[in-house]
Amino acid sequence: MESLDEFSVIKDYFFGLSHGAATVIGPGDDCAVLRLPIGEELATSSDTLIEGSHFPFGSDGDDIAYRAIATSASDLAAMGAQPLASVLSVSLPVIDTAWLEDFTQGLAQAVQCFSLPLVGGDLTAGPLSITVTVYGSLPANHGLLRSGARPGETVLVSGTLGDAAAGLAFLNNEWEPDQADREFLARRFFRPESRLNLASSLLKIASAAIDISDGLLADVGHIASASSLSIRIDARKIPLSPALSKLENSQQVLEWALSGGDDYELCFTMPANKTVPSGCTVIGFTTSGNGVSCDGVEIIGSRKGYRHF
Amino acid sequence: MESLDEFSVIKDYFFGLSHGAATVIGPGDDCAVLRLPIGEELATSSDTLIEGSHFPFGSDGDDIAYRAIATSASDLAAMGAQPLASVLSVSLPVIDTAWLEDFTQGLAQAVQCFSLPLVGGDLTAGPLSITVTVYGSLPANHGLLRSGARPGETVLVSGTLGDAAAGLAFLNNEWEPDQADREFLARRFFRPESRLNLASSLLKIASAAIDISDGLLADVGHIASASSLSIRIDARKIPLSPALSKLENSQQVLEWALSGGDDYELCFTMPANKTVPSGCTVIGFTTSGNGVSCDGVEIIGSRKGYRHF
Repeated sequence: MESLDEFSVIKDYFFGLSHGAATVIGPGDDCAVLRLPIGEELATSSDTLIEGSHFPFGSDGDDIAYRAIATSASDLAAMGAQPLASVLSVSLPVIDTAWLEDFTQGLAQAVQCFSLPLVGGDLTAGPLSITVTVYGSLPANHGLLRSGARPGETVLVSGTLGDAAAGLAFLNNEWEPDQADREFLARRFFRPESRLNLASSLLKIASAAIDISDGLLADVGHIASASSLSIRIDARKIPLSPALSKLENSQQVLEWALSGGDDYELCFTMPANKTVPSGCTVIGFTTSGNGVSCDGVEIIGSRKGYRHF
Repeated sequence: MESLDEFSVIKDYFFGLSHGAATVIGPGDDCAVLRLPIGEELATSSDTLIEGSHFPFGSDGDDIAYRAIATSASDLAAMGAQPLASVLSVSLPVIDTAWLEDFTQGLAQAVQCFSLPLVGGDLTAGPLSITVTVYGSLPANHGLLRSGARPGETVLVSGTLGDAAAGLAFLNNEWEPDQADREFLARRFFRPESRLNLASSLLKIASAAIDISDGLLADVGHIASASSLSIRIDARKIPLSPALSKLENSQQVLEWALSGGDDYELCFTMPANKTVPSGCTVIGFTTSGNGVSCDGVEIIGSRKGYRHF
């Protein structure tokens, strides 16, 4: 694409997605400038997704873009933060206009869905990878941390677990779901819900929260460790989608739900007398001690979720 | 390194660099949380550096880390912003403790030098690349943009130009500097000054600014274009280091200084009656019209700096 250079590509494809209440200066200058609500603090997170590691080789551009924004949005949700904006850094082996149009379509959908206008971008030549930085706002000193859980509280998750891992296994040709469930499961991998809609209610009721990226057991382990207590999970209470609950191989389903990761649902703790938010399920409780157990079995390293190395 | 996993690596190597006045929550939770000075806005930028594209294969870890922070610091300086914090996203082919220790040493130096405490990080397996996001603060509605230049102003640069391009050419074995100049030139590539110390004075006197990453002519072109005017550069006024000014091949030196990029010095415009800040040099002026000329010759696409594709 001889007529395209880095600057015109960025301009053509990404500059239209920057409008938002927080945007003072959007893309095209040395920095983006954002306005925070008065008295609020900035919550921010930056994550890189790499082809072949975080999504299968040959994934559609729109799915990759959507997932990159959604998984970062999930970090804001897990802090109880309200979304302000996002910045994208993309490394691409070649400029392929059809791919970029596809990518931008998914980006536009995600940016709108999660209220994360794209205020800056950087495009470089290299192996396909996407780094998204997200910006959110929080009432001062009120961020929802992993360390705030207390013994005697309930442990909850949003949505259903295991779908994304089952979807990824399907995308990797490791099993064949029913025809009717294939799109649902693939979407659960590529289009995580990222529960930003729960953020403000969790700020009021939850004592600790995390998003489930590495697998439920690994991620509740982070809450247990940061809060210096023990978390007991009841596997029968794990919420499953119809696509998974109907499967005969319940051991595989449990593995996906407990250790699969990629669901980007929220796991949180709250005092037992609080009302369970809509769409959430109690799956266990906290107690003094340390570590995580599931159906009474202590969980040790080997099942503690996905590791990159 | 079987005993190392993603989490302990991040924890061991990066968690000690997060302390700063703006840091409310550092690394280890879903988001970092930053406090902005009252009434100020957030300036932010995110850039990816890829091995073989932004720095030579086999570069030392400490140089790569330092350069990644420094080049992003430069974006804050070009907006007139004060540094608050940084977040790092690193993709590594393997966990190599010696390399990581080296990398962290350069990181620690840069984080201290530019007052950009590292409040978050993400480590993934993949081809070597580094994405740095920086956070700075600005008085509301006072960011120094590329679009603020007016006809009849002077054009200035900080420091000396061309050293980084000459250093990179040396690192790529394209020429041999005098023994005495080799370390200086390599450092000018790997350890850019990133003039954050100029940021507050530029906020008061400058009308537009940009950092020189793609080459002087390309970058003043962005100011000319954003400000809808013409910029005239006098090549004889370009400040050169002793290492370059003593070279006989003045055409090559000029090429490095005008089009080489990677210097991360600041280029800015200001009314002609303002005092030239210490360490800065007047190299031209603005006038009505459009485009950039150098010694009276209109600059067209072919010399407009580095393109990634």
